[in-house]
Amino acid sequence: MSGTFFQPVDAAEVPRFAGHSTFMRLPAVHTAAGLDIALVGIPWDGGTTNRAGARHGPREVRNQSSLMRRVHHVSGTEPFSIANVADVGDLSINPIDLIDGLSRIETGMDQIVAAGAIPLSVGGDHLTTLPVLRAVARHRPVGLIHFDAHSDTNDRYFGDNPYTHGTPFRRAIEEGLLDPKRIVQIGIRGSIYDPGEHDWAKQQGVRIIYMEEFVTRGAEDVMREARSIAGDLPTYVTFDIDSIDPSMAPGTGTPEAGGFTTREAQQMIRLLAGVQIVGADVVEVSPPFDLAGMTALAGATMMFELLCVIAKQVGDRRYAASA
Amino acid sequence: MSGTFFQPVDAAEVPRFAGHSTFMRLPAVHTAAGLDIALVGIPWDGGTTNRAGARHGPREVRNQSSLMRRVHHVSGTEPFSIANVADVGDLSINPIDLIDGLSRIETGMDQIVAAGAIPLSVGGDHLTTLPVLRAVARHRPVGLIHFDAHSDTNDRYFGDNPYTHGTPFRRAIEEGLLDPKRIVQIGIRGSIYDPGEHDWAKQQGVRIIYMEEFVTRGAEDVMREARSIAGDLPTYVTFDIDSIDPSMAPGTGTPEAGGFTTREAQQMIRLLAGVQIVGADVVEVSPPFDLAGMTALAGATMMFELLCVIAKQVGDRRYAASA
Amino acid sequence: MSGTFFQPVDAAEVPRFAGHSTFMRLPAVHTAAGLDIALVGIPWDGGTTNRAGARHGPREVRNQSSLMRRVHHVSGTEPFSIANVADVGDLSINPIDLIDGLSRIETGMDQIVAAGAIPLSVGGDHLTTLPVLRAVARHRPVGLIHFDAHSDTNDRYFGDNPYTHGTPFRRAIEEGLLDPKRIVQIGIRGSIYDPGEHDWAKQQGVRIIYMEEFVTRGAEDVMREARSIAGDLPTYVTFDIDSIDPSMAPGTGTPEAGGFTTREAQQMIRLLAGVQIVGADVVEVSPPFDLAGMTALAGATMMFELLCVIAKQVGDRRYAASA
Amino acid sequence: MSGTFFQPVDAAEVPRFAGHSTFMRLPAVHTAAGLDIALVGIPWDGGTTNRAGARHGPREVRNQSSLMRRVHHVSGTEPFSIANVADVGDLSINPIDLIDGLSRIETGMDQIVAAGAIPLSVGGDHLTTLPVLRAVARHRPVGLIHFDAHSDTNDRYFGDNPYTHGTPFRRAIEEGLLDPKRIVQIGIRGSIYDPGEHDWAKQQGVRIIYMEEFVTRGAEDVMREARSIAGDLPTYVTFDIDSIDPSMAPGTGTPEAGGFTTREAQQMIRLLAGVQIVGADVVEVSPPFDLAGMTALAGATMMFELLCVIAKQVGDRRYAASA
Amino acid sequence: MSGTFFQPVDAAEVPRFAGHSTFMRLPAVHTAAGLDIALVGIPWDGGTTNRAGARHGPREVRNQSSLMRRVHHVSGTEPFSIANVADVGDLSINPIDLIDGLSRIETGMDQIVAAGAIPLSVGGDHLTTLPVLRAVARHRPVGLIHFDAHSDTNDRYFGDNPYTHGTPFRRAIEEGLLDPKRIVQIGIRGSIYDPGEHDWAKQQGVRIIYMEEFVTRGAEDVMREARSIAGDLPTYVTFDIDSIDPSMAPGTGTPEAGGFTTREAQQMIRLLAGVQIVGADVVEVSPPFDLAGMTALAGATMMFELLCVIAKQVGDRRYAASA
Amino acid sequence: MSGTFFQPVDAAEVPRFAGHSTFMRLPAVHTAAGLDIALVGIPWDGGTTNRAGARHGPREVRNQSSLMRRVHHVSGTEPFSIANVADVGDLSINPIDLIDGLSRIETGMDQIVAAGAIPLSVGGDHLTTLPVLRAVARHRPVGLIHFDAHSDTNDRYFGDNPYTHGTPFRRAIEEGLLDPKRIVQIGIRGSIYDPGEHDWAKQQGVRIIYMEEFVTRGAEDVMREARSIAGDLPTYVTFDIDSIDPSMAPGTGTPEAGGFTTREAQQMIRLLAGVQIVGADVVEVSPPFDLAGMTALAGATMMFELLCVIAKQVGDRRYAASA
Repeated sequence: MSGTFFQPVDAAEVPRFAGHSTFMRLPAVHTAAGLDIALVGIPWDGGTTNRAGARHGPREVRNQSSLMRRVHHVSGTEPFSIANVADVGDLSINPIDLIDGLSRIETGMDQIVAAGAIPLSVGGDHLTTLPVLRAVARHRPVGLIHFDAHSDTNDRYFGDNPYTHGTPFRRAIEEGLLDPKRIVQIGIRGSIYDPGEHDWAKQQGVRIIYMEEFVTRGAEDVMREARSIAGDLPTYVTFDIDSIDPSMAPGTGTPEAGGFTTREAQQMIRLLAGVQIVGADVVEVSPPFDLAGMTALAGATMMFELLCVIAKQVGDRRYAASA
Repeated sequence: MSGTFFQPVDAAEVPRFAGHSTFMRLPAVHTAAGLDIALVGIPWDGGTTNRAGARHGPREVRNQSSLMRRVHHVSGTEPFSIANVADVGDLSINPIDLIDGLSRIETGMDQIVAAGAIPLSVGGDHLTTLPVLRAVARHRPVGLIHFDAHSDTNDRYFGDNPYTHGTPFRRAIEEGLLDPKRIVQIGIRGSIYDPGEHDWAKQQGVRIIYMEEFVTRGAEDVMREARSIAGDLPTYVTFDIDSIDPSMAPGTGTPEAGGFTTREAQQMIRLLAGVQIVGADVVEVSPPFDLAGMTALAGATMMFELLCVIAKQVGDRRYAASA
Repeated sequence: MSGTFFQPVDAAEVPRFAGHSTFMRLPAVHTAAGLDIALVGIPWDGGTTNRAGARHGPREVRNQSSLMRRVHHVSGTEPFSIANVADVGDLSINPIDLIDGLSRIETGMDQIVAAGAIPLSVGGDHLTTLPVLRAVARHRPVGLIHFDAHSDTNDRYFGDNPYTHGTPFRRAIEEGLLDPKRIVQIGIRGSIYDPGEHDWAKQQGVRIIYMEEFVTRGAEDVMREARSIAGDLPTYVTFDIDSIDPSMAPGTGTPEAGGFTTREAQQMIRLLAGVQIVGADVVEVSPPFDLAGMTALAGATMMFELLCVIAKQVGDRRYAASA
Repeated sequence: MSGTFFQPVDAAEVPRFAGHSTFMRLPAVHTAAGLDIALVGIPWDGGTTNRAGARHGPREVRNQSSLMRRVHHVSGTEPFSIANVADVGDLSINPIDLIDGLSRIETGMDQIVAAGAIPLSVGGDHLTTLPVLRAVARHRPVGLIHFDAHSDTNDRYFGDNPYTHGTPFRRAIEEGLLDPKRIVQIGIRGSIYDPGEHDWAKQQGVRIIYMEEFVTRGAEDVMREARSIAGDLPTYVTFDIDSIDPSMAPGTGTPEAGGFTTREAQQMIRLLAGVQIVGADVVEVSPPFDLAGMTALAGATMMFELLCVIAKQVGDRRYAASA
Repeated sequence: MSGTFFQPVDAAEVPRFAGHSTFMRLPAVHTAAGLDIALVGIPWDGGTTNRAGARHGPREVRNQSSLMRRVHHVSGTEPFSIANVADVGDLSINPIDLIDGLSRIETGMDQIVAAGAIPLSVGGDHLTTLPVLRAVARHRPVGLIHFDAHSDTNDRYFGDNPYTHGTPFRRAIEEGLLDPKRIVQIGIRGSIYDPGEHDWAKQQGVRIIYMEEFVTRGAEDVMREARSIAGDLPTYVTFDIDSIDPSMAPGTGTPEAGGFTTREAQQMIRLLAGVQIVGADVVEVSPPFDLAGMTALAGATMMFELLCVIAKQVGDRRYAASA
Repeated sequence: MSGTFFQPVDAAEVPRFAGHSTFMRLPAVHTAAGLDIALVGIPWDGGTTNRAGARHGPREVRNQSSLMRRVHHVSGTEPFSIANVADVGDLSINPIDLIDGLSRIETGMDQIVAAGAIPLSVGGDHLTTLPVLRAVARHRPVGLIHFDAHSDTNDRYFGDNPYTHGTPFRRAIEEGLLDPKRIVQIGIRGSIYDPGEHDWAKQQGVRIIYMEEFVTRGAEDVMREARSIAGDLPTYVTFDIDSIDPSMAPGTGTPEAGGFTTREAQQMIRLLAGVQIVGADVVEVSPPFDLAGMTALAGATMMFELLCVIAKQVGDRRYAASA
């Protein structure tokens, strides 16, 4: 069937450093029409309160994604054979106007969702997930599996500003985009502003699994709970690269010591199998603070892991439908 | 007289790497009251359309300014003996709200101006100069000597946005803060968006001296003209670090090959002697893109050169007043 | 009670990149008088036999400590609410005279101790711990919990030189500053000069827990033993950043593969609760060899972890005294 | 007329960091058919005898070329309005077989030449110019204006190997691709292997203008001679980035102190006006050795300067033909 | 006995940064004659299909190996006291001719083997292991313990090229240099080109232990199996630095997230005790992509670990022979 | 005659990245006996008051000197054909004892001078020149041609310390090693501590040519004066790399904007022809602060330029003696 789907350039014919840079070396297309999964960049960091730079994330994740190959070595999944996947480019954004920036992202994501494709995006800071959810969850709230060092459920910054990369999930819950009882946050750690900083989220029903709990329980047990929380309803998966340790992902705006290893993160994403994923992202890759492309490579790797899980679902559905 | 003025820490007693980092190793004070010259940071890059990072400029310029000593080796000026100078810290800013950010900078700069101190600031992107001018030129338009690769007199970006680091001087002219016939821009170069991109500025009376003209005429001749344009009325000096060549100032958002050497820039600033400077800044130092602190050192050096010129004026006025 | 104690700048009002850089964004004060805990820099690497640079440690740890917030997310400790903490600046040092350097550090630390504050310092190389101990243990020997890749109990270098960063604890034992039977060294690893290199220390009663033993036993078991060795008598805690793996702490003079993860290190420091800490330090952060501030961030994180443990003790004592 | 030509993305609508990366932000096309000028990458460094890495050149030059705008600020040339220009991608290469690599480059370049487009390529090491010349000069020898630190007219390396980046122009002369009496090399400098190293070239009639002669005579005089040597016959222009000083172009395999400034290089390229250019390249940009994209930016700038000169010729010819 | 063997320079007399740089600070000798173990560099990356640079590996591994000392802290092995070890320099190579390069490496390695020394080499890319095996296994096939992220048993690249760093072990099996039933590959991971990519190897009898199996079983169990596979016949050990995680070994051509920690790698090498090692190498250290020498330090550390295991065997044999 | 002299490795046979690293790829020898010119490293920065790191200078200058070839392209000098030159290694130093460090350097340099070789050394910080002069000028004062940003004739630091890298030439004049009337300092610039900082030197008769005077007069005129000051008596040449601009030589401890270009520096050294040079050095190359080896390459280039001038003298004297 793969003959009818877009295929990546073959590294045994064209070296990885050659040719235009696209996600996974897939063709660049101008529309999500006909795609099962749309790989898309959101080069915007308008919500960043400290070190900006995630606007440069999509370009470098594209570069490093040239190291991904066609087959997942553990699951055996061949994403490009069972799903139609392509790089639809970057969404239109506005680097100097936060509200217009949010609006443009929502509009761009609407088109992808309307075309029937599952969006797998690369940020951008974590505020980008808010307009993405506005598009993805337009018709019903979704669940959320959220890998991060930070809960991102704060309220206001710099006076009365409601929109920063520290607030997206509070806003999304308030807007009814997320079902808070179907949210699980994994890997939260690091010092906090206030003893009650996570209270609001917990009161809504959000389940926070701190890093220390993860270390004690291990990936399998934690992900069993996560899958249970998500249930079999539509769920979004968001992966903040700062959930990974700063030694493995230094290129990010708010590094916190003591994070996941990439091995642990890969294992957790593989354990998403079975979750009904309606969209996913990798955010907060900030190339100006990166070293040797290490963080962008980690981001590209997580993107590939997510792609394989989502493609498997697509393939299974297609197979079921055709059976 | 220096006994009564603030003095920098002595590097023969406390090494340059020791102690809290302040501009020129001067004391950190909380008010501009009593100062002749206020060194101040404006850590804000909300107007940046491409590579952000100038928000981190003040911190690194402070670090590198530890290499400045007490006496200018050419002019013999001892700025800290003839003027009261200190580091008044950073202005309050807002990294996620452009309009509020502009307002906060204006308010902060108002206080410095009201205290009677001449502000010598370190940005921040070039849009920071707009609110600074709103404070400095509140009561009458000022002239402008402007070192830059770019004219920064564009009109609109991303639809209808009037405020970016490419537009401050158009806005300042429109707002009556600058007398366009007393503006000279030196070092302009690099490809442009439109053949008529500089027409508006020229029609207002702005004198643009392109890099190629500078190369032909040399610093002395160019600065003679610049002084003549500024005349003996109040003049602001703005130094965009991207006027310097990217090899000497790589840490900036919009590098353009073919810039000034630091030697040329130093020579030009020294030739500002006689201009009635009411404020000055060094902008667009972007540490995330810098190499080995090179750009911040160039910025600190230009800041010291500007300080010596301004302090000389202050000292001369004080001497004249006391005579 | 926190109203009466020094408080850090709030990052939701002043972004982390703004303002003068101090430890934990606390006020810079000129004396330890009135403080419970004095945060202090010792910018000196005069004992370094290989790659110098730890002299630049305090400045960069200050910068990275801007990422620390007010509350420990695991213990819930709010250090700034239960103890009076401030940044007392850097001790006077001498970069070109080893003996004078040691003397100045001792003098500076004497003043902090005399003021009744517990010193939490940032080096500097590990030889800085010797003069610190001379001040802290002036009146009775103390115990030592020592995280490091190296035992630092060697004897002589380059002929007959007794003072290098490889010898401080041998000197401290000889000088009666440390009770060798109350010393535990954790994480020792890497090739050694001589089969009997650690024999002297062991003969004094020092307990060396090599990395391999740590890997087998785990943090909880090892720290149980460490607390037992320290007992309930005054104990100093010294954290050499090279105990952490070079991938997480590359900016150090003597990296050794196979070190602690920051997660392991954080866990161990949290398990210091109950130890009677009379002083602590983080040493050997060497910014010229660092990458993206990663090592300084690890150092700042360990400093914050130590601060929380010490502040908890201070708070508990105050509460007990007031009860 | 520009409505019918390919146009770059507008940075006032789509920021420079957004979207897929192509040369000058032009559309990526799959054929040179219909183009006046074909921008093309040759990601191959198979001839490199010391530090490889130029294979990564095209990708980074594409990235940095996003900083180029639509109009040349000195000549006023608007290349995209007077010539049809696009990015035709990278030629097929072979990183592990030198002879096959040369053959593939020649084949790829043949197609561009056959389509009637003038190739403006980005290497790759300087050996890439040999197969390019085989295509461009297939039907008659061409002249050569050659900016470089090295003459690249050596004979054999590592025994009897005729093809390295130190030999292309010897081979091209031997193969009759170049008319040696119409070759001028500018900027040659640096220590040499043998006192007679340049004798062969000089005996063929090649004119070598060493850096020291350039410094004495200046760009205008030197380029007057260069234009005279090229005459009004078809001429190829090759720009080795190592002709520029290592401080401005550190990312190259064989840096030589004492090179051109970018200002000098820009001036020389502008003085190519009037030369009948049948192809041009920028080679030896080696990103793994680059700093902050500085060399790639220099390369992109030279590429833009060359583009403007060539487009002007195209436009003039078209105008003459239509007149 | 050590008096008669070559000894490293003593860091307590000559600092690590002083003197000519050699492997482990041992003497540089011109022949392997008289040596038990020959440390040798193979500065060649002619088989690299993506990012070259391993040609620079030996120089930087020499530099970082200056941090190794005389005694292994776990096993107590003193390699330089029980075996005669020296740095025999780099083998002759050819950077621009793959076939000649392979031939020169084989010839150079032949001389070392003929002299009776066990070669411990530093590459170079992984294709260098093929000509090494041609020398080491000239008279009988050997077993292989292979640490790597990649199986390196692919067949053809870029048309019909049989020799790349992705094919050496397929070629070695085909040439009868390796007994495939005595090959174990440990740490294999990362996406693959084809679902059947590893089938050929498995059909020959190669045992592939994927990273995920390693994580489950642990080093002791895995190495027990590895020793069993190798048996007590001559075995070669090859350590590709990309088996280690990219955060700990970023300086390599084909990084794969999720690798070994250096702690795990050290443990595995120590568990090689008892294997009859006839040669070993550390490959794919690529300094142009390295950070702060981190990868070269990891490489030097693995080299020292291998050296200690091999020296122990040499010492035991010598003792047995003399008994 | 070159058959009898040491020759560098040929880069057309052994690539520059291969083999042990020595100055100019010459043989490493253990004694200066029989040499005309001894290339030697002094890895010591004990006099550094700010940023240490010059101790690592010799190793990196050796690495970068691999780019030097056999013949000077302007003068045609073939240094290795007319003089016997080799790398005698690094002098013994002491990184933790300033006085012992000075003594060891003097002793080591004594042996080179006693052997009749002219020393051409690479530091190390500028204090290393003091003990070198004690050896070179043991029997009579010498003249000094001194390229530097700083006069290095200060008196005391950190209380009463007479020996730092800011004082060597004051000490050397006081000790009678230098004839102050035969000293010329070229390129002095940057802010100073005190208006009278250079008065002492000037009173002794030292001629200081500030950078601004150099810019006005040019290299030829300045060097004519320098040669005249040196006269035809024995003269030492010292080249502080910080005389070069920080953009071209960032890897140094005390960078000052506005320095020489490498082109200017090369021209000046070439104009030393005729000076009777009895020793020379290149100092203050500090690799931890360097970028891409740029400063070490500049240092190696200046070393090669100095070598050619000195070798020419040796050759001329030998020819004259044999005539």
